[in-house]
Amino acid sequence: MTNYKKLEAEDIAYIREVITDPRRILLGDDINEEYSHDELSDTKSWPDVVVRALSTEEISKIMKYAYEHDIPVTPRGAGTGLVGSSVPMEHGIMIDTTLMNHILELDEENLTLTVEPGVLLMELAAYVEEHGYFYPPDPGEKSATIGGNISTNAGGMRAVKYGVTRDYVRGLEVVLPDGRVMELGGKVVKNSSGYDLKDLIIGSEGTLCMITKAILKLLPLPGKTISLLVPFPSLAQAINTVPLIISSKSVPTAIEFMQREVIIDAEEYLGKKFPDNSSDAYLLLKFDGNSTEEIEKDYDAVAQICLEQGALDVLISDTEERDESIWKARGAFLEAIKGSTTYMDEVDCVVPRNRVNELVQYIHSLNSQEQIRIKLFGHAGDGNLHVYILKDDLSDEEWEKRMNRVMDLIYDKAHELHGQVSGEHGIGFAKKPYLSKSLPADALELMKGIKKVFDPKNLLNPHKICQ
Amino acid sequence: MTNYKKLEAEDIAYIREVITDPRRILLGDDINEEYSHDELSDTKSWPDVVVRALSTEEISKIMKYAYEHDIPVTPRGAGTGLVGSSVPMEHGIMIDTTLMNHILELDEENLTLTVEPGVLLMELAAYVEEHGYFYPPDPGEKSATIGGNISTNAGGMRAVKYGVTRDYVRGLEVVLPDGRVMELGGKVVKNSSGYDLKDLIIGSEGTLCMITKAILKLLPLPGKTISLLVPFPSLAQAINTVPLIISSKSVPTAIEFMQREVIIDAEEYLGKKFPDNSSDAYLLLKFDGNSTEEIEKDYDAVAQICLEQGALDVLISDTEERDESIWKARGAFLEAIKGSTTYMDEVDCVVPRNRVNELVQYIHSLNSQEQIRIKLFGHAGDGNLHVYILKDDLSDEEWEKRMNRVMDLIYDKAHELHGQVSGEHGIGFAKKPYLSKSLPADALELMKGIKKVFDPKNLLNPHKICQ
Repeated sequence: MTNYKKLEAEDIAYIREVITDPRRILLGDDINEEYSHDELSDTKSWPDVVVRALSTEEISKIMKYAYEHDIPVTPRGAGTGLVGSSVPMEHGIMIDTTLMNHILELDEENLTLTVEPGVLLMELAAYVEEHGYFYPPDPGEKSATIGGNISTNAGGMRAVKYGVTRDYVRGLEVVLPDGRVMELGGKVVKNSSGYDLKDLIIGSEGTLCMITKAILKLLPLPGKTISLLVPFPSLAQAINTVPLIISSKSVPTAIEFMQREVIIDAEEYLGKKFPDNSSDAYLLLKFDGNSTEEIEKDYDAVAQICLEQGALDVLISDTEERDESIWKARGAFLEAIKGSTTYMDEVDCVVPRNRVNELVQYIHSLNSQEQIRIKLFGHAGDGNLHVYILKDDLSDEEWEKRMNRVMDLIYDKAHELHGQVSGEHGIGFAKKPYLSKSLPADALELMKGIKKVFDPKNLLNPHKICQ
Repeated sequence: MTNYKKLEAEDIAYIREVITDPRRILLGDDINEEYSHDELSDTKSWPDVVVRALSTEEISKIMKYAYEHDIPVTPRGAGTGLVGSSVPMEHGIMIDTTLMNHILELDEENLTLTVEPGVLLMELAAYVEEHGYFYPPDPGEKSATIGGNISTNAGGMRAVKYGVTRDYVRGLEVVLPDGRVMELGGKVVKNSSGYDLKDLIIGSEGTLCMITKAILKLLPLPGKTISLLVPFPSLAQAINTVPLIISSKSVPTAIEFMQREVIIDAEEYLGKKFPDNSSDAYLLLKFDGNSTEEIEKDYDAVAQICLEQGALDVLISDTEERDESIWKARGAFLEAIKGSTTYMDEVDCVVPRNRVNELVQYIHSLNSQEQIRIKLFGHAGDGNLHVYILKDDLSDEEWEKRMNRVMDLIYDKAHELHGQVSGEHGIGFAKKPYLSKSLPADALELMKGIKKVFDPKNLLNPHKICQ
């Protein structure tokens, strides 16, 4: 274990040499409280200094210095994570990438977009759509940075048809813990040139190196999207319909499930009515293609399956306004649930698509069995559930007890169903115990070995994932 | 460097305990010459013993024993590699997986296929298509095993639209060098649970562990495919049309380029006429979708672009027979070129799609400049070129000299164009010098470190990729 050096005046002096604009160095009271935590987790720890970097060169110099002086470094994007990945557990230097927010190049011949890590997902999406292109990964949190999305391998709603962030990263520029700058991949479409370091870095939550540039793959923007909102009498019926949709060989872009109570939370949070809230449970599906005709057969067949499985109706949304109102509500679920309680923690497990119902029924049974409120929604089409355990007016002590017990039970059940700890939010600090319980011991040992290869002094984002 | 133990009678005795059927242990003269090399490379080395494994358990026991006794182990599938990945450079034990050729499960609710590593690509494709499903990776060599395809991250012709093997591997069972069995991933669609060991293993050419089972992702089988064969007056015109197709926002399944001389080789090899061989150069495109109407607009637009760029004609193939005759010829190119000379070696580099023409023109100029025959064809749509340097009647000495020089020149040029050494064939033994020249030194050092984490004694497939 490295004996971390506490930041001193001489270290700050060096940082001032590299970062000549004093407004980009935050110290003491200038460090906003938000830098000590992320969006959800109660993991809390303050950096000694925050550096708002503008270039790879600045980051490289600072990391080189930190490495030579045993100072821990923690990367941070927009801080929208949910598991404490960006919290500086050993203090030291925090490198904030949000000012590195430039779109560097749209290459229409290679269908790539080159970006700095601090570009927000919503900015990126808007930019490419304006040019007739499409960046498919679509996590609910649009104000996350692309660097953060790559670092957690964010998934999102369109994973059913289009896959996850990993599938859209062609190349990376990274800074290794000791300050060396390295490029991986590029604009090439195929690559079998040695071990796949690029994919190893994607999803490594800023523990192996710091991402300073990314080359993303784009697709042509589909000409038409249509959403179906399908009310069901029960959640079990709704979710059990999903494997039938999948095996019917139609390919929806997204299949989400939701319950009335979460919809009502969202209505309150947004101050806006959802098109329908009269049923207990809903499937929300999206289809896309080049024309209405192209997707018509697909969604007709899926609507038929839903009705056969007991759906009460099939509401078709084919105008942009209606579509936006539905998906905006869906995008607000996390914040809406957060607003409905005093405090909460989350589970982001993923199971095979045909086991979702079993897991959801089990989680529902915990509501009364463990005397704690639990809300959930999720990506039914890809088996990724977002489960929120609510503190409400429980005492801190009682909360800790019940919440930990419920978490253990949910993760155990997910494991039993051949699931994994995280579908898209990552492990960070908060989910480490569950990862080490869920993964084979051999896999965890290999991960520790890999961390050591990249970061022998354990200076970059310590205490995360497997450390 | 491990001091490898030479196989002795006691070691064979142990193998006989594990593999009770003597027909599955090959020794001495029973070892077919083919086990000493792969399909192309002149890398040649004999195993001391070949074990034709039937189960993970057998492989685990043998690898554990080998690890304890410092005996090198080399995995081998169908031996269709082109860079020596499956050649046992330090002799020892070769584990042949071709008898582990069972399709274990088609899961229609999760759209996955679970297979043993020795299943041949053509068997796999036929099986899933019979059930209305589609496994998109489509390398030319259909008699490769799926284990080999995963180990090289094989790409193939449909990469333009569907990606490569990596994109279709959901889970793996592997045996680590010391015999421990480990499962990675599973039937889950998303996963952000620690470092991505699965993707690290894909493309690692049997140097990190041995693949004993794979869970593959399937898609519904497209209802309709249509191919366009487009003759051009010159190769430059043909290839320059590709970036225009890409930026036109239509998404062909495949875009291949070919020259008359290679088509004539294929006609001779197959004893069958190609639909057209009157032009110097061709683009061959494939489109797929659920119906003719769905893809019509796409291929009409692309045909228009080709004609605007000087195409002499656009031959549409929409019957299965015609389609098969075209793509069968395309699939035979490698063997056909091989049959047209005494000996050859290959380059499998990949460059950004808009740099293909520059590379092709450069390679053509080497024909006369370096006084050596070079034939090439390739995946124009994904920038992956297959270049064959032909020995013809050159003396061994002259061949070595010219071939090495030409290789150096081609790899240097590809690097200059921001390309990579291998698009899909891998590095193995033959391409090591080019990998180490092309990759950043830091990346190579990290790869060596990772190899050491998995295989500290360097017993599994030594002398490959970065060792």
